[in-house]
Amino acid sequence: MEQKILLKESDVPRQWYNFAADLPTPLLPPLGPDGNPVSPDMLAPVFPMNLIEQEVSQERWIDIPDEILNILYRWRPAPLKRAVYLEQHLKTPARIYYKDESYSPPGSHKPNTAVAQAWYNKQFGIKRLTTETGAGQWGSALAFACKLLGLECKVFMVRISFEQKPFRKIMMQVWGANCVASPSSETNAGRKVLEQMPDTPGSLGIAISEAIEQAVTDPSGTTRYSLGSVLNHVLLHQTIIGLEAKKQLEYAGEKLPDVVIGCAGGGSNFAGLAFPFAAEKINGAEMTIIPVEPAACPTMTRAPFAYDFGDTACTTPLLAMYTLGHAFVPPPIHAGGLRYHGMAPLVCQAIVEGLLEPRSYHQNKCYEAALTWAATEGAICAPETSHAVAAAIDEAQKAREEGKEKVILLNYSGHGLMDLSGYDAFLAGKLTDYELPDEDLQKFTKELENLPKAEIRKTGKW
Amino acid sequence: MEQKILLKESDVPRQWYNFAADLPTPLLPPLGPDGNPVSPDMLAPVFPMNLIEQEVSQERWIDIPDEILNILYRWRPAPLKRAVYLEQHLKTPARIYYKDESYSPPGSHKPNTAVAQAWYNKQFGIKRLTTETGAGQWGSALAFACKLLGLECKVFMVRISFEQKPFRKIMMQVWGANCVASPSSETNAGRKVLEQMPDTPGSLGIAISEAIEQAVTDPSGTTRYSLGSVLNHVLLHQTIIGLEAKKQLEYAGEKLPDVVIGCAGGGSNFAGLAFPFAAEKINGAEMTIIPVEPAACPTMTRAPFAYDFGDTACTTPLLAMYTLGHAFVPPPIHAGGLRYHGMAPLVCQAIVEGLLEPRSYHQNKCYEAALTWAATEGAICAPETSHAVAAAIDEAQKAREEGKEKVILLNYSGHGLMDLSGYDAFLAGKLTDYELPDEDLQKFTKELENLPKAEIRKTGKW
Repeated sequence: MEQKILLKESDVPRQWYNFAADLPTPLLPPLGPDGNPVSPDMLAPVFPMNLIEQEVSQERWIDIPDEILNILYRWRPAPLKRAVYLEQHLKTPARIYYKDESYSPPGSHKPNTAVAQAWYNKQFGIKRLTTETGAGQWGSALAFACKLLGLECKVFMVRISFEQKPFRKIMMQVWGANCVASPSSETNAGRKVLEQMPDTPGSLGIAISEAIEQAVTDPSGTTRYSLGSVLNHVLLHQTIIGLEAKKQLEYAGEKLPDVVIGCAGGGSNFAGLAFPFAAEKINGAEMTIIPVEPAACPTMTRAPFAYDFGDTACTTPLLAMYTLGHAFVPPPIHAGGLRYHGMAPLVCQAIVEGLLEPRSYHQNKCYEAALTWAATEGAICAPETSHAVAAAIDEAQKAREEGKEKVILLNYSGHGLMDLSGYDAFLAGKLTDYELPDEDLQKFTKELENLPKAEIRKTGKW
Repeated sequence: MEQKILLKESDVPRQWYNFAADLPTPLLPPLGPDGNPVSPDMLAPVFPMNLIEQEVSQERWIDIPDEILNILYRWRPAPLKRAVYLEQHLKTPARIYYKDESYSPPGSHKPNTAVAQAWYNKQFGIKRLTTETGAGQWGSALAFACKLLGLECKVFMVRISFEQKPFRKIMMQVWGANCVASPSSETNAGRKVLEQMPDTPGSLGIAISEAIEQAVTDPSGTTRYSLGSVLNHVLLHQTIIGLEAKKQLEYAGEKLPDVVIGCAGGGSNFAGLAFPFAAEKINGAEMTIIPVEPAACPTMTRAPFAYDFGDTACTTPLLAMYTLGHAFVPPPIHAGGLRYHGMAPLVCQAIVEGLLEPRSYHQNKCYEAALTWAATEGAICAPETSHAVAAAIDEAQKAREEGKEKVILLNYSGHGLMDLSGYDAFLAGKLTDYELPDEDLQKFTKELENLPKAEIRKTGKW
């Protein structure tokens, strides 16, 4: 049997799958500062209307424009690989498949939505996009997409990453982006922070505020903001992952997987793989679907479901989600992409419904899994991806104990070649395991009490 | 038309192609310190006999063991891609294809031979391999191969790279290799240099001497040395690249390419792509085959064809090749893999025969080409690979001027994600163009006069 299940470009799905259309209980609406639902036109200064339409769409299938597919073909369709060497190592009867999203030029799944967002903005007459980035995966993906589509790109990179990860910054510059450390002196939000805390390492929350400010205050009206996860349209663009994987599993002679796994920071790579399978679960299929997060940032496993802001500066609409509170200060774990205080509302509502079974892991366990992966499958995974690998290993061992021939599918969301310092710390025995103390959880989530309450609604079917 | 021509694992060639069998004039023999040809058994302390047999083989086709294929399947077959976006940008009638060798876990073509060498060593009962590495591509490839096959791996990394490229070192450590800065205090060769020059930045020549010394002095006899380029068996293992590409061009409906291009440091990635096509040229096909080197290290374009040592310390046999002299000190260009003083004897004899048309480029031109590539094809190439890209762009422009629908094939030997500092220097306008001065060429090659002469033998057919 072939170890890789390849697709042709002509096999790539022509439509994205919109999970909102099948969600058993609809999403709670985003709320404005006055507590009333936000109407689409209120988002117009931030996002182009064509993406806002996708954000609120209830259509199950949304056509992927040919021009977007033509750009994605630079690396898509992504291979589905059977992890035969890991299986042998674990002596598991499980068949482990992984969708390899590391082949994109920036090295992760992020370009799937970066390209789509840049294309829709360009269609809408936008000339320039602003965004924020933490570890740099998202910033480099948007830089890449803007370069290929001829848009300007401005990235506010969290200062500590800007200084510690010069290579990510160079990568963005190779693709022509203007990348500055955040907080910067270019925005009111940045200047205000710098006045109070000149030596601040920065945060994703501050960087988001700066990026949004630059987008909405451009007098020409041709700048918009772009977000790499959390929002419905971002997750929509990532469903190409799961749709391809579904076809590939069929080609491999498999029925539906028994277990579907992805790491989840804002939720986009997880949802991209999982939602097309979650649709089958809604239709009656039995399946365990596991989003994995760090124990240091336990949004899905320990935080309340509540209305909260997306950024620290409280400039975004309120979203109903599991949240550690917008003031949450994540510990310095190496999986920079998994340190967000909230989680995509679509993922959260699916958790509320009982469709997903979130799980958290300590970072040492994840690096151990990553080393096992490197020693068997060969590749070095991103620190974020190592969470999915760790869960897959656990599930494969469980299958061995149960003596069951399960099919396990995971999203290999990116490679770790730009993030090797975490491996270095782990190999030197210097990596610390953080687990959020209860008192911190209570402190950060206390502020949620002053915000509108998010109603828990579920059908009780799962 | 599909932009990527994919193969199945079952399409991967089952035999390597040995160019030595078809070379119109045979290679001059390697010579020992006494000026007499080296017999295979004299190499036995350094290499296992099964690889020495490959080194001297005249068989045209050599079977690839299934177990090696099974390891290569982790990333092979490598896609052949049509560079449609670059073609559009250049407005060329040429069709540009590139063989993408950047998909291997270490990120280059190097694992094709690292896996084969580690496997043959293991078959021969060897437990541990030693090697040297400059920029780190080869060291990480051998670390990777040894990890998958359960061998120990010791890498002597040129000190300046060891200090400037900590991520390559971490990569090797993730794959379990022991990587030390060279010169080290672990060998006589290293200690001797350190006594005389405690602050030396090190060199590939010194690192080779250290690696060979550790291999031949292991009292258990279970350590051997492994080289990442230059030698016949290394080039042999790389021919899988060209054999795959040939099949892929057929699948794309193309006849033979008009132009074949690869960058050449020691010659292995170039030969891997080019030799299966050079065989067709020997059989009468018209084709321009271009190995590309840096103007700073102009081995093929300006150096004499002569017998010379492979290392600075003069411990290897003498090889007949184009050489800048074993004492050559390369300038600090960013394409670390193209700074070797010599060149694979098989490539050199093909040049002597007139089968190849070597060319040299300045590094600024190469980085400019790399940025054009990133802006069109999307990916960030290795500094070495940028030489092939620059030549392909020149050839595509020439095709436009001539109004010819040429087929251009290049080897995309690796990605540049671990080598971004050269891009940084280029973008900042701080990159210097080095061209070897005539007086330096004369100085370094003067020592060759004291060595046996290499006879220029050619059929005169090309």
